Amino acid sequence: MAQSLLTIDLGAICANWRALAQMNAGETAAVVKADAYGLGAEPVAKALADAGARTFFVALAEEGVALRNVLGPDVTICVFGGHMAGDAALIRDANLVPMINSIDQMLRHVEALPGHPFGVQLDSGMNRLGMEPAEWSALRDIALSQKPVLVMSHLACADERAHGMNAFQLQTFRQMTDGIDAPRSLAATGGTILGPDYHFDMTRPGIGLYGGLPFVDARPVVSLAIPVIQVREVNPGESVGYGNSWVARVPGRIATISAGYADGIIRAMGPKAHVWAGETRCKIVGRISMDLIGVDVSAITKMPETVELLGRHQSIDMLADAAGTIGYEILTSLGGRYARRYVGG
Amino acid sequence: MAQSLLTIDLGAICANWRALAQMNAGETAAVVKADAYGLGAEPVAKALADAGARTFFVALAEEGVALRNVLGPDVTICVFGGHMAGDAALIRDANLVPMINSIDQMLRHVEALPGHPFGVQLDSGMNRLGMEPAEWSALRDIALSQKPVLVMSHLACADERAHGMNAFQLQTFRQMTDGIDAPRSLAATGGTILGPDYHFDMTRPGIGLYGGLPFVDARPVVSLAIPVIQVREVNPGESVGYGNSWVARVPGRIATISAGYADGIIRAMGPKAHVWAGETRCKIVGRISMDLIGVDVSAITKMPETVELLGRHQSIDMLADAAGTIGYEILTSLGGRYARRYVGG
Repeated sequence: MAQSLLTIDLGAICANWRALAQMNAGETAAVVKADAYGLGAEPVAKALADAGARTFFVALAEEGVALRNVLGPDVTICVFGGHMAGDAALIRDANLVPMINSIDQMLRHVEALPGHPFGVQLDSGMNRLGMEPAEWSALRDIALSQKPVLVMSHLACADERAHGMNAFQLQTFRQMTDGIDAPRSLAATGGTILGPDYHFDMTRPGIGLYGGLPFVDARPVVSLAIPVIQVREVNPGESVGYGNSWVARVPGRIATISAGYADGIIRAMGPKAHVWAGETRCKIVGRISMDLIGVDVSAITKMPETVELLGRHQSIDMLADAAGTIGYEILTSLGGRYARRYVGG
Repeated sequence: MAQSLLTIDLGAICANWRALAQMNAGETAAVVKADAYGLGAEPVAKALADAGARTFFVALAEEGVALRNVLGPDVTICVFGGHMAGDAALIRDANLVPMINSIDQMLRHVEALPGHPFGVQLDSGMNRLGMEPAEWSALRDIALSQKPVLVMSHLACADERAHGMNAFQLQTFRQMTDGIDAPRSLAATGGTILGPDYHFDMTRPGIGLYGGLPFVDARPVVSLAIPVIQVREVNPGESVGYGNSWVARVPGRIATISAGYADGIIRAMGPKAHVWAGETRCKIVGRISMDLIGVDVSAITKMPETVELLGRHQSIDMLADAAGTIGYEILTSLGGRYARRYVGG
């Protein structure tokens, strides 16, 4: 087998959900957009539903339809993107709850699906999704008379506890929603950790479920074992990989391992990243290519059959540091070519 | 619809294959590993087979099995990764041709599948896959007596015409193979363009089929249209997106478009990349998030329903420049959440 093995711990995902749920008194939903952050919306959402999650969030109506087919009729499925042109049949048939982001979407929704459940997304300062304060002022009474199932917003800087944006967005959200009857939600993982002021009636954790920062106590969820295809000796002056970007200075040994940027091992991490061969950290050498990576295994006496890129020695956030990105992108980049094993569900 | 539309021009892929085939007198294979560089191995390989390709290359035996199911028995499917432990049944049942990379793999192959076709991969200096000159010296007579269907190597710097590595690898490959009876192959797309000295009996284009450099005359293959969810006014001092990394200096308008790094829009490109709204180039502002991107559309009077990230105005290589990577990674990162439309097949 040259196929790498991605192991996904559904038990850890559920434990993370329960831990986040215990931090707040309201309902704890689960964000499973983007194929559950790359980990497989079907098994992940099933496990979370078994663990007690009752409300799920996706980005697109199409994701919501797929999720409804998996979870059956008894859960609530909310769509962050709202009600887009052409979505009415999907929303109706799969009984999705669009988070209405604008007056245009509100008009589209009540015209196409009068009486169909919806939520409202407000912009409290991130300027990404949701109604602006002025729009909301104009629409608020009409919207609230239609009984939205949720009124929500999203924080831009919740992973930085001390950032002034958090208090600013909290204040804006309160100004826009204090006194309404509808349930309210502001916090994803970061906001959940910020504390009770941010919790309102529902929290919506995503990254924390999947073992990533800013939930520092999260249980890790993924491990990735990559097979070694062959090992060769290199002499000083020999280069490894495309563009001759790495040249041996001393005699050594190079393993070629069977995964690459086509598997979501972000090419930019090449110069800084490591894999683990047993208990030994081994530097990636040369450019990461599409299906293959060179690794300096000069320190290894007995070469294992696989090396670890993610797992006990290296978290998604450590690997993200090497790639100059965030753990979220490490997860969503995980490729389709891995054998996937789900444990602990 | 908030779902983006990825259009893949199978006619352009076939035209690129024919153009590369016309550059050399030998057989022109097709490299369809990594799901045909992210574009869909099944439709791409079928179209190439219809266009006349008879030999296909994949990275892993598992990819070869899937390809055999699509293409039927009449084509040759070669596996760059060779014969790994545990692969014998896959190789036998799907009639795959492993490129043997080491003495270990050779022993494994002749022991498990005596008489089954194989090729040999030689390392001519890239130190990634294939037998070293010393290994090959030891094994050569035995290997050749088993009639390998191909003896091949791979160039490390073929996209840089003037790089001295090209002539060095050519010389090494000739020293290792001149005088043998088996068909030989050294060139992928870059080597095909380097000229007849590099062609031998078979070329193996990959990226050139898919419209990428170094094949400058390639027809572009992909276009990507991303729906606009909403447009909002921003005032000076307002920030957009996570971490408040972008702040408006003048009054403007921001569109939120429905795709993000979970769709393979590499997060690192955020500060440098643009999309096109009709004929107007619009800057991405703020951090690319998982499912959403902010775009400065202040210059747009009539907002289109979708914007173009890849297509007539922007090639995979232009986008790669913004991301600090290569067109190959732009392609292989294209996500699973797009609606995919195949044209021209």
